Amino acid sequence: MQAMKSESSRTPHLPRTPHTPHTPHTPHMLREIHEQPDALQRALEMNGVVAQRIAAAVARRGVQVIVLAGRGTSDHAALYGQYLLQHLTGIPVALATPSLYTLFGAPFQLQRALVIGISQSGESPDIVEVIAQSRAAGALTVAVTNRQDSPLANAADETLFCAAGAELSVAATKTYTTTCALLALLAASLPGGERLLPHLPRLPALMRAALATEETVAGAVVRYVHARDCIVLGRGFQYSTARETALKLAETCYVIAMPFSSADFRHGPAALVERGLPVILFAPPGRTAPDSLALLGWLRERGADCTVIGEERHPLEQATTAIALDLPRLSEDTERGGEVQVDELLAPLPYIVPGQFFAVYLALAKGLNPDQPRGLTKVTHTR
Amino acid sequence: MQAMKSESSRTPHLPRTPHTPHTPHTPHMLREIHEQPDALQRALEMNGVVAQRIAAAVARRGVQVIVLAGRGTSDHAALYGQYLLQHLTGIPVALATPSLYTLFGAPFQLQRALVIGISQSGESPDIVEVIAQSRAAGALTVAVTNRQDSPLANAADETLFCAAGAELSVAATKTYTTTCALLALLAASLPGGERLLPHLPRLPALMRAALATEETVAGAVVRYVHARDCIVLGRGFQYSTARETALKLAETCYVIAMPFSSADFRHGPAALVERGLPVILFAPPGRTAPDSLALLGWLRERGADCTVIGEERHPLEQATTAIALDLPRLSEDTERGGEVQVDELLAPLPYIVPGQFFAVYLALAKGLNPDQPRGLTKVTHTR
Repeated sequence: MQAMKSESSRTPHLPRTPHTPHTPHTPHMLREIHEQPDALQRALEMNGVVAQRIAAAVARRGVQVIVLAGRGTSDHAALYGQYLLQHLTGIPVALATPSLYTLFGAPFQLQRALVIGISQSGESPDIVEVIAQSRAAGALTVAVTNRQDSPLANAADETLFCAAGAELSVAATKTYTTTCALLALLAASLPGGERLLPHLPRLPALMRAALATEETVAGAVVRYVHARDCIVLGRGFQYSTARETALKLAETCYVIAMPFSSADFRHGPAALVERGLPVILFAPPGRTAPDSLALLGWLRERGADCTVIGEERHPLEQATTAIALDLPRLSEDTERGGEVQVDELLAPLPYIVPGQFFAVYLALAKGLNPDQPRGLTKVTHTR
Repeated sequence: MQAMKSESSRTPHLPRTPHTPHTPHTPHMLREIHEQPDALQRALEMNGVVAQRIAAAVARRGVQVIVLAGRGTSDHAALYGQYLLQHLTGIPVALATPSLYTLFGAPFQLQRALVIGISQSGESPDIVEVIAQSRAAGALTVAVTNRQDSPLANAADETLFCAAGAELSVAATKTYTTTCALLALLAASLPGGERLLPHLPRLPALMRAALATEETVAGAVVRYVHARDCIVLGRGFQYSTARETALKLAETCYVIAMPFSSADFRHGPAALVERGLPVILFAPPGRTAPDSLALLGWLRERGADCTVIGEERHPLEQATTAIALDLPRLSEDTERGGEVQVDELLAPLPYIVPGQFFAVYLALAKGLNPDQPRGLTKVTHTR
């Protein structure tokens, strides 16, 4: 690890196109980012039957509430799942408060609940505990994990398996997006989610298109080598993308990166904005686009240094640093009956890719080893 | 406002004891912090009947899930409510995702839900929309607001009224703690919450005891005048306190303040810690105390500059800056049947007080006007 760190700080790390073979000195994190299209394809192919079985159990039990539990990156996948499951099924979805289970233990009324525990290692003791207690309280329990024989998988009724292959970088990438894909598969298998199902096989192509941002991002990060802090903004389905990008920047680049939903941002934190403050804004097309544009105008007036990740000309033209995605469309361009387009529901998966690239290339530009953040280990044992 | 700003940056602002009368130049925020004991007493006295009526409706409808919606400070009160309601009643509690209502509109299955909308002004359009849509979908709806004739109150079935008096500072203080107290009153009125009810009248005394930290905090902040960023940590019931303190620091002092539950902190953000990094840790007695002590040891090893807010000798002795609270005990010292003590459930109300003082005195020490953060207005219109 030490050798790799010296290596990466000595030699300039050139951006490569997605299909250039990686050398042995490529950081695990960068290699794992590139593995995402294949990992997603595997995850979706392997879990269709399990997702159908969970959906049948949800119907049989008359589930009235869904609870998602995860820590760190897994909590961000849970946040994406909260928006997607709630939007498509109409069932209220809560993010769990694990310490209520592990520290304050009390009976929960979960007979009509689906409780989903997320942990790439399947070993987070608090998430295992949430699943074990919820199952004992009568909930239908599901594990989402990258280890099939893990304590988490053993504690749950059903397991959605990431099948992402070993993740060697401490900073999670492919286990994040495979988890998001599995939550999308589950949502698409429940009543209300049907229209999403035929589009899921096109997720790997979306991820490949997003990998094309690599060269732009690798060139852009140099501007931010000495940035000590930044703000990361996203709204709706992309709030999870903002949170996950901020965490990647914190753990690999030691940047104090504060994520906000752009709505919450206006309720106070906006006061932080001053000339030169780096702000990363996820600005996809769709329902949140007018809000993104208005916010971008406000930020520019105050001289913020705005990195915009988007597809449309308007927000990108206003950026200090523009990261343009060119994603294949999944839906027809016209809205059918005011329905939210599936593009918007699935966009958080390709949109996190430039965020991941930003973190890995900024770490390299700072001479840091993105695979081995100080003070962290791959499996975190919190109770 | 400009006059006040010059005033506060010209003359040193001396700490005063809680009972010193405030001059006309006292910032509204400081005056409003001191109004909290009386405001809480009014709020609790005025809302007992409404809380009982809501509890009866919850029983009648067989509520299976509770949803809380708020933005900014109101979202932090919601977070406290999430922990407290879930812990005492066992009913799963979700924080709402307002943009799903306002931007992505879809039918929600809320016939067995209690939906609580929180807005001090009662005017946040997205929170009003959450309540209106939820009520149309068959939910039992409750407004928590400081304006009885507001759009939010009019949209909801029932209103819990803060009765905090006009809040003139943009940075909310007394509307935060009165909202927390009203959520505690509601929790205490529901099955499972009974043991909390007799202790609520003692909340004003708890708040008065917390006001005694003023002089310590006013003296301590000078060390942090040039701190650009910091981390704020709390766990369990105090996670809301950490988030609310971070927001106060961001909006009044322009400090990039990142809040984490100390469990999530270990899953990535811990990599940020380096020598001299300011960390504010809420370390109350009780179930989270061992975790706080372990974390504090870890932070000290890495040279972090730790402000500890607590009552017990062990964590306070390890602080760079110790802020000791001397709170009257509510429960007997022994645990009865392993039950979590009411002290721990109510502690977030007095513990936020030194956080509020920290923000107002640090703003004054920096020559800022805490009542009027740049770029903000008292009512935020987000959709």
